[in-house]
Amino acid sequence: MNSFNSRLRKAIRKHKSNLCVGIDISPEGLGVDPGDLPALVRHSYKVVDATRDLAVAYKPNLAFFERFGSKGFSWLEDLVQRIGEDKMIIGDAKRGDIGNTARQYAKSLFTYFNFDAVTLNPYMGEDAILPFAEYAEKGTFILCRTSNPGALEIQGVGQDNPLYLRVAEMALRLNTSNNLGLVVGATAPEEMQQIRNTAFELPFLIPGVGTQGGDLEKGIRVGNTGGGALISVSRSIIFAGDKSEKDIRHAAENYVKEMRALL
Amino acid sequence: MNSFNSRLRKAIRKHKSNLCVGIDISPEGLGVDPGDLPALVRHSYKVVDATRDLAVAYKPNLAFFERFGSKGFSWLEDLVQRIGEDKMIIGDAKRGDIGNTARQYAKSLFTYFNFDAVTLNPYMGEDAILPFAEYAEKGTFILCRTSNPGALEIQGVGQDNPLYLRVAEMALRLNTSNNLGLVVGATAPEEMQQIRNTAFELPFLIPGVGTQGGDLEKGIRVGNTGGGALISVSRSIIFAGDKSEKDIRHAAENYVKEMRALL
Repeated sequence: MNSFNSRLRKAIRKHKSNLCVGIDISPEGLGVDPGDLPALVRHSYKVVDATRDLAVAYKPNLAFFERFGSKGFSWLEDLVQRIGEDKMIIGDAKRGDIGNTARQYAKSLFTYFNFDAVTLNPYMGEDAILPFAEYAEKGTFILCRTSNPGALEIQGVGQDNPLYLRVAEMALRLNTSNNLGLVVGATAPEEMQQIRNTAFELPFLIPGVGTQGGDLEKGIRVGNTGGGALISVSRSIIFAGDKSEKDIRHAAENYVKEMRALL
Repeated sequence: MNSFNSRLRKAIRKHKSNLCVGIDISPEGLGVDPGDLPALVRHSYKVVDATRDLAVAYKPNLAFFERFGSKGFSWLEDLVQRIGEDKMIIGDAKRGDIGNTARQYAKSLFTYFNFDAVTLNPYMGEDAILPFAEYAEKGTFILCRTSNPGALEIQGVGQDNPLYLRVAEMALRLNTSNNLGLVVGATAPEEMQQIRNTAFELPFLIPGVGTQGGDLEKGIRVGNTGGGALISVSRSIIFAGDKSEKDIRHAAENYVKEMRALL
């Protein structure tokens, strides 16, 4: 009962919250000079301090760190320390590569950065997933139906049994250690229902609420059945109001209140 | 005529070589202690020095650097400097994310690391591609039919018009700046022929020759028509023989000889 998926469900129940705070801090979003890395670091700490008792998990997206090369990765290392071991940390990496290379990425994300879970891309098939799934105590969320406008051109291929359902079936098959989940956007509530029917016991990581306009209510009512759901909110928390600790906390509190009302 | 795809074809003609050396140096492959980063750095320089006049391009796979966190990215920064501006450098990142995040990755790979080209994952659709395609002078190779054994479970979905051909069609449509190409494994020569028929003018980046057992002859005869092809070889060059500069060079020379005989 110490699988990742059990721990996740327990954490959601304990916090009475599904909130995952996405830490995607760009200079453009924060409104600082493109080279002002220290301002970004300070803001990331501010976000964590303001939301620590409200969030079940934090989800740094690696793109926002990689943009600054080795200095950005130092920031990510420090941020993981700052968040600490009490909270789940999901490395939003969306990696996907052949077996030999996937093993390097798994070492990077699970051993070096010590993330509790990651996001992965299924385009290369199970070879890209298995080296991660082997880490029984770590979680892996596989992109299934993403939140972006152009998602269906690829994910909807195969009319009767669209690709996103095939991915859900593949994830179910590989979920022998109860540590796999799916990324399902809040912007596609109908597909979310289909995917929940196909993969009842898998947890969902649900982006798209907030700036992207996704449906929080459906995300909770549909997504948070079965294997449960983390609702990931990024820009509308981390850049809320005047971007002060107070306004960030206020935005996160409002999301948690709304979630509790729906649970 | 200064598009990435024109420059690539010109470089292939000038060098009379299609060789792209994949720089995927793990401690396990090199046979050193997992923490011996300096040995990996030295070996990567050795590979570049031994093959400089034989390779058209180098392709570091980011997984092998990221595994060491910020220190690994410092290594990658130094390696890009060491290779210099005379050779094309392809950042094998296989990234793929929604628009806002894809823009961060594009800044990382094209501006910070200054790669000439990258590899991308098409699962999220055109939203993940366009922020890269906008860099008119940079190249983007989109995963199409990959070289790994489990590739077709996802890439083959949609029988009459399988996903890998849809990806080829999408790449063609987005190729308005003549800077997009496709990743097509040498392990799948029949699909390579189909993809070449669909996307005649797009360059192919062809992995899977060497350790993975792909077909070099088909890679050249089919892949190097139309938009041309880079043949990427990693392990069977970088770990050739006793891993000395002499054996690495010898292995690379043999590949180039074989390519020239086929051209």
